[in-house]
Amino acid sequence: VLSVRLADTHAADLAGALAEFSTEHLWQLLSCFPLSTQADVFSYLPEDQQVELAHNVSRQDFMPVIRQMSSDERADLFNQLSGAQKQALLPALAQAERDDVLSLSAYSEGTAGAIMSSDYAMLSPRLTVSAAIEVLRNEAPDKETIYLSYVVDQDRTLIGALSLRELILAPTYALVDDVMKHDPIHVKVDTAQEEVATLVAKYDLIAIPVVNAQGQLVGIVTHDDAMDVAAAEATEDFHKTATIGKLEGSVKDAKISLLYRKRVVWLVVLVFGNIFSGAGLAAFEQIISEHIALLFFLPLLIASSGNAGAQAGTLMVRALATGDIKLRHWGKMLGKEVLVAGLLGMTMALAVYALGYWRGGLDIALVVAATMLIVVLVGSLVGLSLPFLLSRFGMDPATASGPLITSIADVAGVVIYFSIASWYLPALV
Amino acid sequence: VLSVRLADTHAADLAGALAEFSTEHLWQLLSCFPLSTQADVFSYLPEDQQVELAHNVSRQDFMPVIRQMSSDERADLFNQLSGAQKQALLPALAQAERDDVLSLSAYSEGTAGAIMSSDYAMLSPRLTVSAAIEVLRNEAPDKETIYLSYVVDQDRTLIGALSLRELILAPTYALVDDVMKHDPIHVKVDTAQEEVATLVAKYDLIAIPVVNAQGQLVGIVTHDDAMDVAAAEATEDFHKTATIGKLEGSVKDAKISLLYRKRVVWLVVLVFGNIFSGAGLAAFEQIISEHIALLFFLPLLIASSGNAGAQAGTLMVRALATGDIKLRHWGKMLGKEVLVAGLLGMTMALAVYALGYWRGGLDIALVVAATMLIVVLVGSLVGLSLPFLLSRFGMDPATASGPLITSIADVAGVVIYFSIASWYLPALV
Ligand SMILES: [Mg+2]
Ligand SMILES: [Mg+2]
Ligand SMILES: [Mg+2]
Ligand SMILES: [Mg+2]
Ligand SMILES: [Mg+2]
Ligand SMILES: [Mg+2]
Ligand SMILES: [Mg+2]
Ligand SMILES: [Mg+2]
Ligand SMILES: [Mg+2]
Ligand SMILES: [Mg+2]
Ligand SMILES: [Mg+2]
Ligand SMILES: [Mg+2]
Ligand SMILES: [Mg+2]
Repeated sequence: VLSVRLADTHAADLAGALAEFSTEHLWQLLSCFPLSTQADVFSYLPEDQQVELAHNVSRQDFMPVIRQMSSDERADLFNQLSGAQKQALLPALAQAERDDVLSLSAYSEGTAGAIMSSDYAMLSPRLTVSAAIEVLRNEAPDKETIYLSYVVDQDRTLIGALSLRELILAPTYALVDDVMKHDPIHVKVDTAQEEVATLVAKYDLIAIPVVNAQGQLVGIVTHDDAMDVAAAEATEDFHKTATIGKLEGSVKDAKISLLYRKRVVWLVVLVFGNIFSGAGLAAFEQIISEHIALLFFLPLLIASSGNAGAQAGTLMVRALATGDIKLRHWGKMLGKEVLVAGLLGMTMALAVYALGYWRGGLDIALVVAATMLIVVLVGSLVGLSLPFLLSRFGMDPATASGPLITSIADVAGVVIYFSIASWYLPALV
Repeated sequence: VLSVRLADTHAADLAGALAEFSTEHLWQLLSCFPLSTQADVFSYLPEDQQVELAHNVSRQDFMPVIRQMSSDERADLFNQLSGAQKQALLPALAQAERDDVLSLSAYSEGTAGAIMSSDYAMLSPRLTVSAAIEVLRNEAPDKETIYLSYVVDQDRTLIGALSLRELILAPTYALVDDVMKHDPIHVKVDTAQEEVATLVAKYDLIAIPVVNAQGQLVGIVTHDDAMDVAAAEATEDFHKTATIGKLEGSVKDAKISLLYRKRVVWLVVLVFGNIFSGAGLAAFEQIISEHIALLFFLPLLIASSGNAGAQAGTLMVRALATGDIKLRHWGKMLGKEVLVAGLLGMTMALAVYALGYWRGGLDIALVVAATMLIVVLVGSLVGLSLPFLLSRFGMDPATASGPLITSIADVAGVVIYFSIASWYLPALV
């Protein structure tokens, strides 16, 4: 009964349970499974545990698992190993596997090459449909997917794609060339992984083929890895918009020193940004001393400006990331933002006018309301434009984070508020 | 040549090109395609254009497309139609299609039921493998996927799952019951769509079966729709962390009034939050007038507190959304945060100590450095804890946005800064 139950348990759940054990016990338990299950479960273990096992299990015991792993997972593991461990491992692999590991692990992180698998099903255009199905049946155990196969010419140039559904619905005597889709959607080895995920989502693909500079098929990226990439890219943007540097892996298990390093940089940079706000306040010390009641409204004015800016910025950062908005839409979006921010500014001005009147009288109310309208507009337009500007200069728009926009809004808010106050109030004193 | 090219063009690209035309011309062009392509392309059109066509094309012309659409897309469209349009459409459908549309469109938004398709492949456990393959071949044209089929007993209770790969590798005379996975991973109709997407990602599934309260199979959610859900949920959280309300569809095409409504609520709410900061400043007017030099450091102290808090909050919001962190990890994360924020606070304190000394002398430097250490700690611990607290009380942790944390940090910063200054500085005057 237990073995039946285990066969029905998904490898991800087995890995989740095994991850709780010490490295030693984990390996003992893992060895009890059939080899293909071992490789599956191993691939679902957290990366640091995979590396730990690779370093501690004897090479003889470990090699069969490594050889059974899917090519993309194996290359990921290889990239995590120490130099010595890599050198020890390579001679133990057969020539074909060695070449595979070396070529897959050579692509730079963040590209299609670094996430692709070389276990794809490949067909010749001259095959009949029934012969093609036979090929797929024979290759099924070793391929990442047989639901999509890719058609290549003699040079391995990608010329078509064909789903298993189309194959089994086609007449058995037809040629692959006649039933395949020509010129299928594909990416290059150096296409950014984010772009790969976007294409998989846009076209609802189970896998997308990857070609080299010569147009030859060299790998596929499957839907599950594309989904992981999309999640990782979203996480990266989330973190960036809160000025946290690129953080891979679990936050729960991240080391103190790593978290410190990823957070300290922008905190310090923004201190220097905020010196300008301080200098702004210092420059207006005179008017502040004379109308100390103005201080009451300072936090809400600059916070409102920053908040409106963060809203506009975040809308643009996310829309640029999902492809909803392109760089060329800046003008259109700016036009809309003038109206939206204008309405928001007027609403907010009304709210603080009442507050200002109640607390400081008519003059203060007018200064505060006018300031609110202007700073909400300025904050929003800066927040909206910054992501486009960064993108235009080849930087990641997600760097236009809330805190950066807030800092700019703070400086602008201080200067605008006290300038209006200096211009309007002294006349009455 | 043109017709060959069109057959190789993905429906998403055809829809992208057609979307540029007016409703009238769009329909004329669409009618030139074979019916199955028409339905595919139609499903890839933006939702407002689908509704526009549904309202303007004659029922007679439109019905064939509606009947050919996949069940999930059809239900989505139905939900967007006016009451009158719904009533006009239903009698034109066959009984089975009518039941299907009505049952699929009845599930509440955000649940598995609302995103599932009823076009799944279903097998009996008593079938032989070869008979099962024959069933799939016959049903292939009408099913969302045939790469995964679901095994049900006489009551339609879900008892197993089987991939086409497993089927074609199994002995042809074996029974489905003997080769299927028992008790497959599944969700209920009322499971949150976010949870569905998380499971699809965790288990790398092409589709996940959906059962009703009785455990009967009623639908599947496919990988492509799970990927869209994951992206939409990430967008929602992005917007929430910048205090933007739930905004569906394109930001580019969103109406001014919609953008205004989604943004104004929290902007106004936060003004009231910032009144406390203002009140804090007003309460300390005395010490501020006496040491007006203190004002210079105010913006950078409260901004640093807010920024550190936004970092900690965002890390938690995203980790809670991806499942990296659970509610029960609050204690562990708080312990780590005390150390990380302590280090950050000390770094920042050092930086402003120098600045304080240069600008205001030793006393100011000490006050500013001590304040920095404390406010970075307080901001970080509030930022870290708020998402857990909200989650604990059944609210979305993403509501613990940067601006909310910043507002709290502002109040705390003002009070801490001038309390320390009042306590330390007057002794020297
Ligand atoms: Mg991996
Ligand atoms: Mg890799
Ligand atoms: Mg999609
Ligand atoms: Mg993979
Ligand atoms: Mg994977
Ligand atoms: Mg990115
Ligand atoms: Mg839809
Ligand atoms: Mg729906
Ligand atoms: Mg996955
Ligand atoms: Mg669908
Ligand atoms: Mg879809
Ligand atoms: Mg959510
Ligand atoms: Mg602020």
